[in-house]
Amino acid sequence: MWLLESAPLGRVVFTRDALPAIRPVNHLVEDGGVIIVRTQLISRLSSAVRGNSPVVVAYEADDIDPVRRVGWSVVVTGLAHTITDPDRIARYEQLLHPWVDKVMDTVIAIEPTIVTGIRLVEKRR
Amino acid sequence: MWLLESAPLGRVVFTRDALPAIRPVNHLVEDGGVIIVRTQLISRLSSAVRGNSPVVVAYEADDIDPVRRVGWSVVVTGLAHTITDPDRIARYEQLLHPWVDKVMDTVIAIEPTIVTGIRLVEKRR
Repeated sequence: MWLLESAPLGRVVFTRDALPAIRPVNHLVEDGGVIIVRTQLISRLSSAVRGNSPVVVAYEADDIDPVRRVGWSVVVTGLAHTITDPDRIARYEQLLHPWVDKVMDTVIAIEPTIVTGIRLVEKRR
Repeated sequence: MWLLESAPLGRVVFTRDALPAIRPVNHLVEDGGVIIVRTQLISRLSSAVRGNSPVVVAYEADDIDPVRRVGWSVVVTGLAHTITDPDRIARYEQLLHPWVDKVMDTVIAIEPTIVTGIRLVEKRR
């Protein structure tokens, strides 16, 4: 989780119309490991998460050096839900600034259930 | 597709036991846009793809500068299947060298159906 926290961006993986979908986003990791991302209400991610019951998503971050071929990847699997509390929304809008120049009116929280990872090390000769 | 071809690695997104799964891999893009990755027979990816009918996966590559907040992301959605032809397997084993120091005995081809992408540009002031 601290590797993921240290990463400037990650990729949220979800199912949309029964198809695997992925998009890069920037994030905030709260105490307790909850991952916060901001998106648009009209986005595919929002429509996948919206609804009465939380949906399962994966969240991946990595830092891999393609020249030395070393690095790490962390994958968090957990339940995603839309945050509706206006105070929390206001707080995340202060803390987390999307990199996309669009109105990001939806805040999504991912609660980790499974955390896995790999580390690439220098190849043995 | 040429952006994806230029990327040293990508992330394959699939469904495993009804859960969204993702892992970083290096790839080769063939003429015609077929994406080739190598994996282990015992991997989650192999067991998701193995079988008589192809499965739908997504393949994502990106190059995003977290400081300037510019870059791109390409997502290919398509059918994945295991390659069984020994000549093709031998050829890919020559051309594509996994970065993970394990026996990678399975070759998977992803045939693109949908190609989408985003480009992050400097924010308007």
